[in-house]
Amino acid sequence: MTTGVWLVGARGSVATTAVVGAAAVAAGLTPPTGCVTESPDFAGTRLPDLGDLVFGGHDVAGADLAKRAEQLVRSGVVPAGLPELVTDDLAAADAEIRPGVRVPVDARDQATAAAALASDIAAFRERRGLDRVVVINVASTEPPAGEHPAHGSLDALSAALASGNDVLPASSLYAYAALTAGCPYVDFTPSTGARLPALDELARRRGVPYAGRDGKTGETLLKSVLAPMFAQRALRVRAWSGTNLLGGGDGATLADPAAAAAKNASKSLVVGETLGYPVDGQVHIDYVADLGDWKTAWDHVVFDGFLGARMSLQFTWQGCDSALAAPLILDLARLMDLAHASGRAGPVNELAFFFKDPVGADGTTGGPGVDHALATQYATLRSWAASR
Amino acid sequence: MTTGVWLVGARGSVATTAVVGAAAVAAGLTPPTGCVTESPDFAGTRLPDLGDLVFGGHDVAGADLAKRAEQLVRSGVVPAGLPELVTDDLAAADAEIRPGVRVPVDARDQATAAAALASDIAAFRERRGLDRVVVINVASTEPPAGEHPAHGSLDALSAALASGNDVLPASSLYAYAALTAGCPYVDFTPSTGARLPALDELARRRGVPYAGRDGKTGETLLKSVLAPMFAQRALRVRAWSGTNLLGGGDGATLADPAAAAAKNASKSLVVGETLGYPVDGQVHIDYVADLGDWKTAWDHVVFDGFLGARMSLQFTWQGCDSALAAPLILDLARLMDLAHASGRAGPVNELAFFFKDPVGADGTTGGPGVDHALATQYATLRSWAASR
Amino acid sequence: MTTGVWLVGARGSVATTAVVGAAAVAAGLTPPTGCVTESPDFAGTRLPDLGDLVFGGHDVAGADLAKRAEQLVRSGVVPAGLPELVTDDLAAADAEIRPGVRVPVDARDQATAAAALASDIAAFRERRGLDRVVVINVASTEPPAGEHPAHGSLDALSAALASGNDVLPASSLYAYAALTAGCPYVDFTPSTGARLPALDELARRRGVPYAGRDGKTGETLLKSVLAPMFAQRALRVRAWSGTNLLGGGDGATLADPAAAAAKNASKSLVVGETLGYPVDGQVHIDYVADLGDWKTAWDHVVFDGFLGARMSLQFTWQGCDSALAAPLILDLARLMDLAHASGRAGPVNELAFFFKDPVGADGTTGGPGVDHALATQYATLRSWAASR
Amino acid sequence: MTTGVWLVGARGSVATTAVVGAAAVAAGLTPPTGCVTESPDFAGTRLPDLGDLVFGGHDVAGADLAKRAEQLVRSGVVPAGLPELVTDDLAAADAEIRPGVRVPVDARDQATAAAALASDIAAFRERRGLDRVVVINVASTEPPAGEHPAHGSLDALSAALASGNDVLPASSLYAYAALTAGCPYVDFTPSTGARLPALDELARRRGVPYAGRDGKTGETLLKSVLAPMFAQRALRVRAWSGTNLLGGGDGATLADPAAAAAKNASKSLVVGETLGYPVDGQVHIDYVADLGDWKTAWDHVVFDGFLGARMSLQFTWQGCDSALAAPLILDLARLMDLAHASGRAGPVNELAFFFKDPVGADGTTGGPGVDHALATQYATLRSWAASR
Repeated sequence: MTTGVWLVGARGSVATTAVVGAAAVAAGLTPPTGCVTESPDFAGTRLPDLGDLVFGGHDVAGADLAKRAEQLVRSGVVPAGLPELVTDDLAAADAEIRPGVRVPVDARDQATAAAALASDIAAFRERRGLDRVVVINVASTEPPAGEHPAHGSLDALSAALASGNDVLPASSLYAYAALTAGCPYVDFTPSTGARLPALDELARRRGVPYAGRDGKTGETLLKSVLAPMFAQRALRVRAWSGTNLLGGGDGATLADPAAAAAKNASKSLVVGETLGYPVDGQVHIDYVADLGDWKTAWDHVVFDGFLGARMSLQFTWQGCDSALAAPLILDLARLMDLAHASGRAGPVNELAFFFKDPVGADGTTGGPGVDHALATQYATLRSWAASR
Repeated sequence: MTTGVWLVGARGSVATTAVVGAAAVAAGLTPPTGCVTESPDFAGTRLPDLGDLVFGGHDVAGADLAKRAEQLVRSGVVPAGLPELVTDDLAAADAEIRPGVRVPVDARDQATAAAALASDIAAFRERRGLDRVVVINVASTEPPAGEHPAHGSLDALSAALASGNDVLPASSLYAYAALTAGCPYVDFTPSTGARLPALDELARRRGVPYAGRDGKTGETLLKSVLAPMFAQRALRVRAWSGTNLLGGGDGATLADPAAAAAKNASKSLVVGETLGYPVDGQVHIDYVADLGDWKTAWDHVVFDGFLGARMSLQFTWQGCDSALAAPLILDLARLMDLAHASGRAGPVNELAFFFKDPVGADGTTGGPGVDHALATQYATLRSWAASR
Repeated sequence: MTTGVWLVGARGSVATTAVVGAAAVAAGLTPPTGCVTESPDFAGTRLPDLGDLVFGGHDVAGADLAKRAEQLVRSGVVPAGLPELVTDDLAAADAEIRPGVRVPVDARDQATAAAALASDIAAFRERRGLDRVVVINVASTEPPAGEHPAHGSLDALSAALASGNDVLPASSLYAYAALTAGCPYVDFTPSTGARLPALDELARRRGVPYAGRDGKTGETLLKSVLAPMFAQRALRVRAWSGTNLLGGGDGATLADPAAAAAKNASKSLVVGETLGYPVDGQVHIDYVADLGDWKTAWDHVVFDGFLGARMSLQFTWQGCDSALAAPLILDLARLMDLAHASGRAGPVNELAFFFKDPVGADGTTGGPGVDHALATQYATLRSWAASR
Repeated sequence: MTTGVWLVGARGSVATTAVVGAAAVAAGLTPPTGCVTESPDFAGTRLPDLGDLVFGGHDVAGADLAKRAEQLVRSGVVPAGLPELVTDDLAAADAEIRPGVRVPVDARDQATAAAALASDIAAFRERRGLDRVVVINVASTEPPAGEHPAHGSLDALSAALASGNDVLPASSLYAYAALTAGCPYVDFTPSTGARLPALDELARRRGVPYAGRDGKTGETLLKSVLAPMFAQRALRVRAWSGTNLLGGGDGATLADPAAAAAKNASKSLVVGETLGYPVDGQVHIDYVADLGDWKTAWDHVVFDGFLGARMSLQFTWQGCDSALAAPLILDLARLMDLAHASGRAGPVNELAFFFKDPVGADGTTGGPGVDHALATQYATLRSWAASR
């Protein structure tokens, strides 16, 4: 069984780290630290082997993966000497990267652009003789997309695209292309992606699963265990404030207030939805160029104990985003392969473990059906994977 | 249904806060923040009302509860003005406090002392017309007790006591007295308490439940959600270091290296047992007199992500120990009432949610049957309470 | 020698704490912790005694000082029981508080309003038989004031006011009134106050000193010792980020982005001017209502060592703003008394030790003549005070 | 003017980093970040150029400097690719490293061993045609040495050594050898080194300067600016607690409680001596192997403000010890060259800026003559260097 992994943003830090790492782990050069599906809890599930993943993708930028890997060595994400040991794998993935699209699309309408994207993916599947291809969006975060009537149903969307109207943000254009090509789609960013009624309908009709969104790799990961702790101990959280300092491409993107708005919306879900009451406090995302691929998150929680005694918790998380995200990309590729192979169509809400803003069983955001507690999400994931 | 709560260390900060708080919550003067069993998840369980708890206890020290409550106002644990509103409750509890024992016991042998303690508890039950009395140890932490052959079985223990041998540490003497009087016993401290084969046998024979030990109120509470997070995300923890600064009576006790040893042994269980591999790092407990009833814990975790990327997490927890512990005392009194009422005898391992070193189903410490993950412990607790 | 202290914002937390504290220290009820001029380094200087300070002021709000003091007890700023011991002092100060003005001034022009303010201050001086009165602005932070040609010279300002034009922000109106009444003026806030060429000219002509601005009580205080440390050790600071969480009236004011802009401008001076090169990083001020009079500042500094090794420093400062500011108000009253008594007119740049944005010797902000290093500022202060 | 730098512990991380760095800075490959004497404040002083320093030293261990430099690349201290650019410099220094001694000395008495050490240094000076050689101890920290009557005077020491008695710890044996060879000696470790009356006498008689001890590179550096801040603001420090986590050779050495005792004694001087009153709190040094050459220090300060308001400051310092120490070694070599060239003999107390436990003007530790405030120490250093 051979599975394709088609990365939107295939020359980015996360994608490059994922390709280097998959090769290194498969070759036994490094342990699979950070790969959830490699832990003993997932023994016996019918997941493809890491070594059977074949990589390709879209990107709008230029540097080849070998050069990108060297940059990641310099910034401390990838160990010195490792890229040289997996040059063949990097070259193979590099050969499967095709030019992506920006929105607004130059000189073509979105329907034409989407068809070209879908065709790239289908050609990859055929050329490499793959059972299936999982498309995962790891491109830069988009500003929140405006609403449009064409988003409301597949008919409306089809009509709009047929008329040459450009109604989709880039992430949704990729999702449309993936689903059209019959490929599972995952959004690891806070962008819109498949999170539109029209695309939900498309996924169900085409019989393909989708999942997302916004990978949980730092501050929100911690919130997803700390907020349940406060709830279970009946401690009353008064304010939860956070400051995230990050450099790199992600940091530069999020320095744009519009893009940060998307991220912040998704970051703020966990605490309020877990506790069940509104909690005061702001979340800041600051671009600090010198931090490179690293990020530092500081959170400060004010809470009340018995008789109103005022207490506090602070934490500082210092992590390397690409190194936190990359193994989860591999996990998601394997799990979406399993979902597709087992006939699942539409939103895979059982993968909430990975996301800040997990899709609900009905394809919508949040709501009573979504549990943000990491422990519950993990139990759900395990039992789902075991039962496929 | 009226339930007695007999506190060993009845004039200490935790006990005083519990008595003040139970009265204040029952009178509607303050919300039950920090009381787990008051949360909606426990609606419908057959727990006694907070207002039906009747307090008494043993203590070796002198100041009356009203004075102790005033001290707690000055140190910021209890709100100004509150003790005045519950003077009757304080006086009622005060009237039910009897002199405790120290070990070695003066002028009497342990058998005689234990009989006197048991008689105090039984008299309280009778005098106040209580359905049952839950005995909870909130006294100062003892140094780790030496092993003794008489601890191995009830027959050996009975023989030793009958011969006038003093073989029990104080916490176990209280446990012996409680169980002999037919009362459920809980150890909220890291002391030995009922955690001896001889006392486990006694509890089973007498048909009374016991639970413990070492209430989880700060650093370890956080470990019990953070360690599972690292495990579930397959991140490799390299070192977990901690420093606890605390004042108050507990801090003074723990400034004694022997007492601190007991505490540290219990504190170190969670991380290693949850992760399943040994983790480097020391835990310090420093007495800082000026912190009074407050404590600050700083933990520093070094961990590896994908491809060995070295990352870290730090947290600082600033809490008021008495305000964290007191509502749990009320929870444990109610839950042990339920255990006893429903016929449970021996260790109640379903209460692991509350403890750093939870008793196993067979009455022993740790081992494969014990899960330190807070989320799992909470789920177990809820379903156990709901099914009684 | 008796000195008046006229507080603009006389019913605020800082003013109330200063009045309570001056009385308590003078009565020997509490040590003068936080009073710089009470330290042995200032023995032998010709400062008025704390007990000789007489308080009055302007305020636009209503609650009397005794009630405000009780509020400060509840929020943990003032110890329980203390206000009762200084009721006479509170009542005496209360009797000397007059209605302040808001800008725009209702129904009067600014010239008339300023004359009324000056007359209040002069009447206080006369009524109480004071040698002199120091006016200190501890009112809420204003939004940054727009520039106006009338600010450029005393003639222009006088002409504008005479024509009935309202050209001054409130803080400058108070400064104008104070200087007109021949009183030293201090701005403890980041507001404009006396920091206008026209008012500098007025101060020099009237022979009265002024000082400010923006008291240095937390994050910036730390910056003023840490930035010189990095400079002296030739470590290269790459980014300095900060988040300030605060409640209380000051927090609410600063939740207004316009007011926060004034504060942030003043906060950002120290690091860049001390290091001599621009430093990346943002400073946030978040209003967290539940923090009350307390504030928490977290700063994160990224710096390079030898061969570019990337390192970091974080700090968390948890302080009570009123308790940090109030003793400095007493220091400034005493020191400005000394300045005036010794014939100083115009800006007193030797008081830079107290301020985030200290006035230069020429009455302007920043520039080569201003040293932000706390140690240098302290040495300057000491030798200046000793030589009067 | 060519100056020799003779490093005791010449194959250690600090020494290797210093040699790599001196070459890299001299070649213009990297800026002199962290070199105090390269800052504009030292322009115009008569210090030797960095490029004129010639390195050699003693060590008991084996790996050559090129290999040690590669290890430092792997642990992130030295940038990848840099050692290859300075291979000649590394080889040159390597060729000047001679076997050191351990105490107890094998098969020889200390007098013989010291003569051999002195002869190594003198031969280096002659062979390389150096104006002078500064000897700097950067070897592992020793356990505190016992007192011995022979330490009290040069006569007593000479007599003891002449009789074949081994009375000196290793660091003092090196100091004895250096001073005997007419070389300035600096102790960058907390070891005894030249801090004995007998060696002070020897230095004065031989007309050579010495300095030390225990380089101030992290927690104590911060204490030396924060403690004066609390003092100048008249804030009362109640407790100052610290935990240091470090790996590497230094960490392993300090895991030995005896060696840690020396370090802790020197670490605890600053706060108490600066504030002038005893301060509660412990300092821990924990060995965490996985931290390698990096260290993390967490400090927690409890202090009182006005009216006793209880506040706190925490900081976390994450630094690379070798990268912090190495440039100071270069500074000390240059400054001791200046001291010697200008005829200074005995303790150079003007270099207190660099040390946790600076030598007093009379050669003793601490006392009224020693100021731990970094700002004062810097001013002293600058004016001393400028006046030579």
